[in-house]
Amino acid sequence: MSTSPLLAELIEALRCLPGVGAKSAQRMAFHVLERDRAGARRLAERLAAAVERIGNCRRCRGFSETEICTFCASAARDRGLLCVVESPVDQTAVEQATGYRGLYFVLLGRLSPLDGLGPKELGIDLLTERLAEGEVRELIVATNPTVEGEATAHLLSQLARDAGVRATRLAHGVPLGGELEFIDRGTLAHAFGTRQTLL
Amino acid sequence: MSTSPLLAELIEALRCLPGVGAKSAQRMAFHVLERDRAGARRLAERLAAAVERIGNCRRCRGFSETEICTFCASAARDRGLLCVVESPVDQTAVEQATGYRGLYFVLLGRLSPLDGLGPKELGIDLLTERLAEGEVRELIVATNPTVEGEATAHLLSQLARDAGVRATRLAHGVPLGGELEFIDRGTLAHAFGTRQTLL
Ligand SMILES: [Zn+2]
Ligand SMILES: [Zn+2]
Repeated sequence: MSTSPLLAELIEALRCLPGVGAKSAQRMAFHVLERDRAGARRLAERLAAAVERIGNCRRCRGFSETEICTFCASAARDRGLLCVVESPVDQTAVEQATGYRGLYFVLLGRLSPLDGLGPKELGIDLLTERLAEGEVRELIVATNPTVEGEATAHLLSQLARDAGVRATRLAHGVPLGGELEFIDRGTLAHAFGTRQTLL
Repeated sequence: MSTSPLLAELIEALRCLPGVGAKSAQRMAFHVLERDRAGARRLAERLAAAVERIGNCRRCRGFSETEICTFCASAARDRGLLCVVESPVDQTAVEQATGYRGLYFVLLGRLSPLDGLGPKELGIDLLTERLAEGEVRELIVATNPTVEGEATAHLLSQLARDAGVRATRLAHGVPLGGELEFIDRGTLAHAFGTRQTLL
């Protein structure tokens, strides 16, 4: 027996959030109803506004509230550098972790024929046009080191070569603070094979 | 630099949820925007509806969408049993874990003079009236075993005594599956002192 159908529906709806199971959804629902209704109201409004008004930039496909996003519109970013990422969350990771001051291109996926994701879905036409404009001098390939990400990286490097643009990619290796015994074999083998000269 | 002020506001608003820090709020925001906008829209609607329409039952103070909640209105519950809990989440815990078929009374807090929570705030007037109706034959005190919960339990047992109603409380002791060496001393001492006859 439940006190309220609306409460049960709220608990169910909270599970759309990643990492939120039945137990924590219940805890969240009770918490906001008992102690933070103002916060819940604000969250409802912002969720609705975000879903309604955040679309994708026409130039880079990243999240944007406007036709052209703040990155693409900025005069302060180096337009000669273009970092290609799979998703907006990767874009934010690069932006927050590095001092990168160039522009981005967001694929919104990676090559995955089984999921119906080919060059068309990844906006490769748009990227090809962009490289043809001649402004980009370095294409930084920042796809994820998965099988599909590697296939995507391969496609991107071909694209850059065809456009006469230099392509680079993020270095692979042992993560800082990582201990060798816990690194997966593939990474360790790669790091060993691409070892750097110290002296 | 951020792609969208609305996105930053959404991430901030998600932190009203318990256990959600900056990192997971960001992950949640990107997840719903990239992969589950329908789910996010539904969550926004249900949050707004719950905050708007879930109030407290006039009879038991538990969550309810109607003046009288489904528990209090049910003909199937034993009206002679009244379980007093501190909060709606405790009510749900009892309801989900036990086969209890009586009614509830929700204090919406516990005695805490420093926080301005006295008998008035806990609806003790309403509870006193309820006991005076003569229908309740057992008051089950299910406050939490904290200092404030114990003080509240003491108040409740006085109330029951004054009304000539039997008061009971949840048994304390070693949790099922708990190992003695990890039980806190107070609980262990209590469990030892109230040991039960086996044969
Ligand atoms: Zn853009
Ligand atoms: Zn009620």
